[in-house]
Amino acid sequence: MAEKVNLEEKFSLFGEHWRPKVVGELNGQEVKLVKLLGPFTWHHHEDADELFLVVKGRFRMEFRERQVWLEEGELMVVPRGVEHRPVADEEAHVLLFEPSGTLNTGNVRNELTAPEAQV
Amino acid sequence: MAEKVNLEEKFSLFGEHWRPKVVGELNGQEVKLVKLLGPFTWHHHEDADELFLVVKGRFRMEFRERQVWLEEGELMVVPRGVEHRPVADEEAHVLLFEPSGTLNTGNVRNELTAPEAQV
Repeated sequence: MAEKVNLEEKFSLFGEHWRPKVVGELNGQEVKLVKLLGPFTWHHHEDADELFLVVKGRFRMEFRERQVWLEEGELMVVPRGVEHRPVADEEAHVLLFEPSGTLNTGNVRNELTAPEAQV
Repeated sequence: MAEKVNLEEKFSLFGEHWRPKVVGELNGQEVKLVKLLGPFTWHHHEDADELFLVVKGRFRMEFRERQVWLEEGELMVVPRGVEHRPVADEEAHVLLFEPSGTLNTGNVRNELTAPEAQV
């Protein structure tokens, strides 16, 4: 039986940015926590819709044609295939929900590409 | 393209308890918001793991052998097949992640059984 997860406590256990930590799994999906700072990489996920929920701070999700600011307590689903780039001017704490094994940089491999890790 | 969802705003749009509102969908899963008050029904979900994230307030998840208090900013996954009963002494606002079409009372049908609804 899974134990409960306290988000603030889990976020306190790591400092690095853009490296998602798996804190839960259900129905073939994973719940991950990630700290955002600065601009990420333009990418898309071929087979994965991706949910972003802001736990602390704010960031903007850039798309090729528009951008959406996400504030604390706001969530957004980025559908599969849609190019996006998260950008955080100040550190933001974000919960992700996506299929197990989803790579953070999607179709791109670069210095920001990170394997999944536990926290 | 999905729009962002502000949780507080969505919760302000309905008052009834135990009737989940779908606010997002991804990868065959749904994001739902629900207000809890009082004791729910003992039930389980045959084929669905279910995530509970407390957005406001607190409640306890009762299992046959123990109970777990969930506070604001805490989440828990209840695995498929595990009998559970959420109980809220005061109103709690909760976000759910579960497979699309999951019925709130699982294997049970009674006066608390509610069809999924949009908010």
